[in-house]
Amino acid sequence: MRIVECVPNFSEGRRKEVIARIVAPFQDRKGCHLFDYRADEDHNRLVVSLAGDPEAIIEALLKASGEAFSLIDMNSHRGAHPRIGALDVVPFTPVKGLSMEECVETARSFGKQLNSGFGVPVYFYEEAALTPERKNLENIRKGQYEALKEAIKEPRRHPDIGEPALHPTAGATVVGARKFLVAFNVNLGTSDLEIAKEIARRIRFSGGGLAHVKAIGLSLEDRGVVQVSVNIVDHERNPLYRVLELVRIEASRWGVRVLETEIYGMVPASAIYDSAAHYLQVAGLQPQQIIELRLLEMSGEEDDG
Amino acid sequence: MRIVECVPNFSEGRRKEVIARIVAPFQDRKGCHLFDYRADEDHNRLVVSLAGDPEAIIEALLKASGEAFSLIDMNSHRGAHPRIGALDVVPFTPVKGLSMEECVETARSFGKQLNSGFGVPVYFYEEAALTPERKNLENIRKGQYEALKEAIKEPRRHPDIGEPALHPTAGATVVGARKFLVAFNVNLGTSDLEIAKEIARRIRFSGGGLAHVKAIGLSLEDRGVVQVSVNIVDHERNPLYRVLELVRIEASRWGVRVLETEIYGMVPASAIYDSAAHYLQVAGLQPQQIIELRLLEMSGEEDDG
Repeated sequence: MRIVECVPNFSEGRRKEVIARIVAPFQDRKGCHLFDYRADEDHNRLVVSLAGDPEAIIEALLKASGEAFSLIDMNSHRGAHPRIGALDVVPFTPVKGLSMEECVETARSFGKQLNSGFGVPVYFYEEAALTPERKNLENIRKGQYEALKEAIKEPRRHPDIGEPALHPTAGATVVGARKFLVAFNVNLGTSDLEIAKEIARRIRFSGGGLAHVKAIGLSLEDRGVVQVSVNIVDHERNPLYRVLELVRIEASRWGVRVLETEIYGMVPASAIYDSAAHYLQVAGLQPQQIIELRLLEMSGEEDDG
Repeated sequence: MRIVECVPNFSEGRRKEVIARIVAPFQDRKGCHLFDYRADEDHNRLVVSLAGDPEAIIEALLKASGEAFSLIDMNSHRGAHPRIGALDVVPFTPVKGLSMEECVETARSFGKQLNSGFGVPVYFYEEAALTPERKNLENIRKGQYEALKEAIKEPRRHPDIGEPALHPTAGATVVGARKFLVAFNVNLGTSDLEIAKEIARRIRFSGGGLAHVKAIGLSLEDRGVVQVSVNIVDHERNPLYRVLELVRIEASRWGVRVLETEIYGMVPASAIYDSAAHYLQVAGLQPQQIIELRLLEMSGEEDDG
C-alpha cells in the first residue's frame, strides 16, 4: 500500500457552489480519501487535504482542476493570500510505502498531465524544483498573478512546463513534493496590519527568526483583527509551541495579546503531542503510549502478516 | 474484532528479573498486545498496559499472575503506592467491538479463574462492583495489605469471591471494568511531603476539588522531591491541563513550582490533543485533522468492507 498526502490549494474561498463542484471528484474516486477541506473567505482560498494512492489522487485532481478552471477567473479574484492561479499550489508528501523521490516523480507526472490537458503553465517547487531558486515557493509566486502576467515572459521566470504565458483565466500552477507542512494561524487582538506584518518578519527564517518557518501578516477584515499566518516546514525542528510563544513575545512589544489560533487542514500527531508535552511538562512521553497510534501500528502489522 | 485494554498492576517495581518473568507471558501470547510496562522503584509497582482479544488477555494474565504469586511476598513488600496484593488491581476497559457490560463479564470471568487457580480472594470494583461501596477502589484497599489481614474477617470486608482470608503471601486482588483512566503524576520542587498531601486533598473530588479526579501525595525519596499522583477517571470532563494548572495554583501558596510531570502508561489521543488545543489556543481542532487518526479510521473501514 502506497499512501501520499496531497494538499491542493484552489483560489476560491467564497462561492459555496463552486467549492462543492471542485471537491466532488475527490469524494467520488476510490483510493482517494478526502481528509478535510476548508474554505477561507478572507484568503478567498480552498485548502483540500487528500491521502491515498498516488494514481487515484492524480486522476481526481485532474477532474477537480477542470472544474476550477471552468469556474474561476483569476482576473476578478481578490483575496488576502498570495496566489498565481486558480489551482495555485499542489504539494505531494510521502506518508507510507514510498520515498520522497517517488513523490517527486508523482509531482512531475501530475504537472505534465495538467499542462497537456488544460494548457496551464506549471512550475515545480521544493523537492521537485528543477533549479535551487525554485525550491522556494515565494520566489515562484513573486508579484502574484497580476505581475506574473508580464514577468513570465522573462527567461528566468519561464515555467518549467508549457509556454511562457499565463493561462488567460487560470493563471499558472505550482506543483511540488515536500515534507509535511503545518499551517498555523495566530490571531492577534489588534486591527493594526503593520503589527502582524512586523511580527511575521521577525519570526520567519527570511527575517532572521526560526528556521523552517515562513510567515506573513494578514488582515481578517470581517473579524476586525489581524493574523500572523505561519507555515512550519519542519515541525520536528520548530514545533508549534515555539512558534506561538515567539509570536506572543514579539506581540507583547505592542501590548497585543494572542486571541486564538487555528491549525489549518491536516496535522501529524507528533506536532500535537510535542506541544502538549511541552506545556504539560511531560517527561519522556512516547508516541507508543498513545493508544490510537499503537492500534494503527497493530493494524499495519496485521496487514503485513 | 473485539479489543479490550487491560492495565494490571503488580506489586514489584524494583527487582528486574522478577519484572521480566511477570511480563514474559504477555509477550508470548498471540492476540495479546503488550503496549507498555513501567516499573517504578518508589511505588515499588509494575504497571502493564495490554490491548487485544479478551480471551487471549485472560490467558496471559493467569500465567503472569502465577509468576507474580510465586515471586512476590507481600509481607516484605514496601512501596509508596497503596496496595493489597501481589497482583493488586486489574481493570478492563472497552476499546473496540464490545460494550462496558461485556467488559464487566470479562472482569468477572477473570476474577473467578484467578481465585479457583490460585486461591487468592477477589474484590470487584467500578463497573464490575457488586455493591455501591465497592465501586470505589479506595474503599476496598482501605488500610492496605497490612490492615486487611484482620479486617477481611469482618463481613462488610469479605471478598466477592473466595474465603474471607488473605492469601498468605499474595494478599488479595481487585478486578474491575471502567472507562479509560489517565495516570498523571506531577513532581514538585520541594521535599515537604505535607505540601504534596495537602495539594492532593485540595484538588481531588473527595476533598472538594475536581470531579472524576483522585489524588494522593507521595515522597520520591531517591529524587528528594514530592509528587502529586493523580488518577483522572474521566479525562473528557477534567482534562490534563486543568488538573496541572490547579496543582500549580495550589502549589503557589507555598512558593513551590511544578518541576515536571509524567503520563503513566497508555493514554487516549484525545487526552493529549485536548490539552494541546488549550495551551496552543487552537479554535475548533478536530480529531479528523490528525493524520494518523484518519488513517486508523481508514484501516478500520477497509477491515469492515
